[in-house]
Amino acid sequence: MSAPLTGLRVVETTSFVAGPLAGMTLAQLGAEVIRLDPASGPADAGRWPLDRDGHSLFWSGLNKGVRSVALDFRSPEGQELASALVTAPGEDAGLFVDNTIGRDFLSYEALSARRADLVHVHIQGHPDGRPAMDYAVNPLYGVPMLTRQVDSERPVNHVLPAWDIATGLLAVSGLLAGLHRRRQDGVGSRIDLALADVAAAHVAHLGWLAEAAERGHDRPRLGNHMFGAFGVDFACADGRRVIAVAITRQQWGDLVRLTGTGVVFDALAASTGADLSVEGQRFEHRSIIEAVLAPWFAARTAAEVVAAAADSRVMVGEFRSPKEVVDAYRRGDESAVLVEVEQGGSPMLTGTSPLRWDRAYAVPRPAPAFGSDTEWALADVLGLSDLEIGRLADAGVVRPSSPSPTSAPTPAMNGAR
Amino acid sequence: MSAPLTGLRVVETTSFVAGPLAGMTLAQLGAEVIRLDPASGPADAGRWPLDRDGHSLFWSGLNKGVRSVALDFRSPEGQELASALVTAPGEDAGLFVDNTIGRDFLSYEALSARRADLVHVHIQGHPDGRPAMDYAVNPLYGVPMLTRQVDSERPVNHVLPAWDIATGLLAVSGLLAGLHRRRQDGVGSRIDLALADVAAAHVAHLGWLAEAAERGHDRPRLGNHMFGAFGVDFACADGRRVIAVAITRQQWGDLVRLTGTGVVFDALAASTGADLSVEGQRFEHRSIIEAVLAPWFAARTAAEVVAAAADSRVMVGEFRSPKEVVDAYRRGDESAVLVEVEQGGSPMLTGTSPLRWDRAYAVPRPAPAFGSDTEWALADVLGLSDLEIGRLADAGVVRPSSPSPTSAPTPAMNGAR
Repeated sequence: MSAPLTGLRVVETTSFVAGPLAGMTLAQLGAEVIRLDPASGPADAGRWPLDRDGHSLFWSGLNKGVRSVALDFRSPEGQELASALVTAPGEDAGLFVDNTIGRDFLSYEALSARRADLVHVHIQGHPDGRPAMDYAVNPLYGVPMLTRQVDSERPVNHVLPAWDIATGLLAVSGLLAGLHRRRQDGVGSRIDLALADVAAAHVAHLGWLAEAAERGHDRPRLGNHMFGAFGVDFACADGRRVIAVAITRQQWGDLVRLTGTGVVFDALAASTGADLSVEGQRFEHRSIIEAVLAPWFAARTAAEVVAAAADSRVMVGEFRSPKEVVDAYRRGDESAVLVEVEQGGSPMLTGTSPLRWDRAYAVPRPAPAFGSDTEWALADVLGLSDLEIGRLADAGVVRPSSPSPTSAPTPAMNGAR
Repeated sequence: MSAPLTGLRVVETTSFVAGPLAGMTLAQLGAEVIRLDPASGPADAGRWPLDRDGHSLFWSGLNKGVRSVALDFRSPEGQELASALVTAPGEDAGLFVDNTIGRDFLSYEALSARRADLVHVHIQGHPDGRPAMDYAVNPLYGVPMLTRQVDSERPVNHVLPAWDIATGLLAVSGLLAGLHRRRQDGVGSRIDLALADVAAAHVAHLGWLAEAAERGHDRPRLGNHMFGAFGVDFACADGRRVIAVAITRQQWGDLVRLTGTGVVFDALAASTGADLSVEGQRFEHRSIIEAVLAPWFAARTAAEVVAAAADSRVMVGEFRSPKEVVDAYRRGDESAVLVEVEQGGSPMLTGTSPLRWDRAYAVPRPAPAFGSDTEWALADVLGLSDLEIGRLADAGVVRPSSPSPTSAPTPAMNGAR
C-alpha cells in the first residue's frame, strides 16, 4: 500500500521547529517535500543538541525524509529558480510552506502571479509579521504563570516548544484543506498562520481566558496539581516520582480501592460533607487527598506502584528523563514509533509519524545532506539540461549536490557558501 | 468566499481535548461536523473551568461550531443510528473521528463493512489501546524532568495539554490525507493515532532522545534557561518578569547594544576566550550573561523594557497571567484570533482558528446545546420521517433537541438520560 499523500509535491523554505515539522509530517505521509535552502546553509543547521561530530541532532530530527535544494537566494537567477520550483505545473504540485521574512520573491503575491492556484501556507511569528519564537511567545499567553510552583512567584517556562509543534501541524492541515479546496473549486489559497495566534487561540479554546474573564481573577498557583480534577505527583520508596490521575468517578473509585483509603475518605465525607465522587470536589480537596494517599506511594517503589495500578483504571505514570526513555528503548520496552535511522553514517534515535495507516507506522527515513537534491530538482522538476545545471553551479547560483569529499571545492562554490 | 472544507461532512464521537479539538478545527475550516453524544450527555460536559451557572467553559471552548446528536449508545437501535450516520453515502461524507474504547459498533471493522471507503481516525491513549491522558503521558517522555528548576529535584509537569493539542491537529491532518487518498485511489483508510506516540515521536523529532543516547546522560537542570542558545527571564523594576531571547548573531548583537553591555562582554571574551557570537557558547556562558544583563532589566519597568526592545531584533515578552491577557483583550490590544461568542445567552471569550484564509479569520460560532441537532440529523442525513423520529424519541433511543425549558420531560426521555 502506498502512503496517503504519494504523488503530491510540496516545496518549503523554513527553519526552526514549526515549518520543518510541517514539511517532515507531509513527507511522512508520503508527499515529496523539497526544502529550498540558502546556499550558505539552513539557518538552524547548527542548532543544539549536536552529535559528537558537531552535527545538529535538532536539524536532523526535524528534517527527516525531505529533499534539500541549495540556491543562492540573493542572486536574481537563484530567486527565479526558487520561484520556478514553487510554481512548477502539475495538479499535485503548487503547494508551498514558508516562514521567511522579507523575501518578496517568495510572497504569495509574487508566486500567485506565476501560478494562480498556488496553495501557500505562510508561517509567521506575530500576525502583523513581527518575528517571534515559541519560548518568547509562551509567556505572553499565561502558561508559565499557571505552571508556577506553589512556593514560588517565579513563572516556569516549560521546555517543550508546544506552540511550534501545534503551528507546524496546523500548517499541514491548512495545506491539505487548501488542496481540497483547489480540487473542488479550482482556486488557490493564501493561508497565513502566526505562532502567537496559535498560542492565543488554543489557550482560549481550553477555556482559560473565559475562566479569568468570568472570575475576574486568576487561578491560584497549583504546582503539579491538575486543575479541576485529582492528579498530582507522589514520591516513591526508591526516590522516584510518579503521577497519579483520577478524572472519572470509576478512576477515583479504583484509586481509593488500590490504596486502601476508603475508610479515611468515607470519614472525611461524613465529617465535612465533601462528595469526593464529584470531579470538582476532588480538586477542591486536593491537598487532603494528596496527604491521605502519600503514605501508600511512599511505601512502594515506582515500579511497584505502576505494577499495582496496571489492573485498575487509575492512570499512573513514572517521571522519566530522556536518558531513561532511551534505556527503555534499548530494552525493547518502547513503542515502535521510536526508531533508529542511519544519519550521516551512524544510527540516530528518532521518531516516525505517530499516524498509523492500516496499523503500520511509516517507514523512517534520514534527513538529507544539505543540497543533496539540487541537481535532481533542476533536472527532474524544471527540466534543465546538464549543461545548464553546470553553468548555474559554476556561477554559484546553485550548490551542486554530493561533491566528492576529496575533491577541492571550486572558487565559485566557496563563494556560494 | 466559502471556507475551504465547505461541503465535507465529518462525524465524531470524542471527549476531552484531542478529539473535540480535531472536530472543532475541521468545523472552523468549513466542514459540517456532527458530534454523536451518548444520551446521558458528553463525558466531559462538566469539566472545569465552569461558568457561574455551572456550565463548562472547557467543553464550550472545545466544541465550537459543531453539531450535537444525542443517541442511546446502549440500545441496538441507537447503535444502528450511530453507524448509519457515520457511513451515510456521499463522496464528501464517510469521514469519522473517535476516541472511544470498547464500543465495537464504532470500530473500523464494523463500520468499514458498511462503507468500504470510510476514512476513520481512531484516537487512542497508548498504541496498545490502554487509556491515557496528557497529564499522565507527559511525565513518561522527559519533559517535566527537563522543565525542573535549578534548585529542585522535583519534576515540573506543565499545565498545557500540549500532546492533546498535537494529537487533535494530527488527527485533522490524518483525516484530510485519508480523504485525499480516497479521491485519488478510491480506497478507505484505517488510521490509528495514540497520544503517547505523539509525545514520544515529537520529543524524538526535537533531538532530545538522540542527545541522551549520544551523551549517555541527561542535560543539567536549566530552569527557565533556554537550551543551546541564550534565553531566560529577568525581573524588572516593577516586580514583573520578562523573557529575553537572542538566538541569531544579529539578535545577540542587538541585545548587547540595547543593554549597553558590549564593553563587559568584550572584556569577558578577551579574558576567557569565549566567542559569544556563537549560539552554543552563549548557552555555555548563560549564567554570566544573565548576571551581566540583569541590572539593565532591574532598572526598568517591564513596559519600558518591551518598548526599548521594540526597535531591535531582540525577542522580549512579558509574562502575563490569563487575567492580564483578558485585560489586554478588553483594551483592544489583542489579536483578532481572540473573539467573543454568544454561548448559552451570554458572551464567552474564546478563540477562532489561527489559520487565516485570504487574510481573514474564520467567523466564530458557539458550541451547540447538547442534542440540539438530533432531529435535523435523523431527517436530513438519514432521511427519516417525522413519525419515525417521534417513535425513536418516545422509545428513548434518541434525545430530541431543544425541548422547551418549561415542558416536563416525558418518562421515556428521563429513561434516555
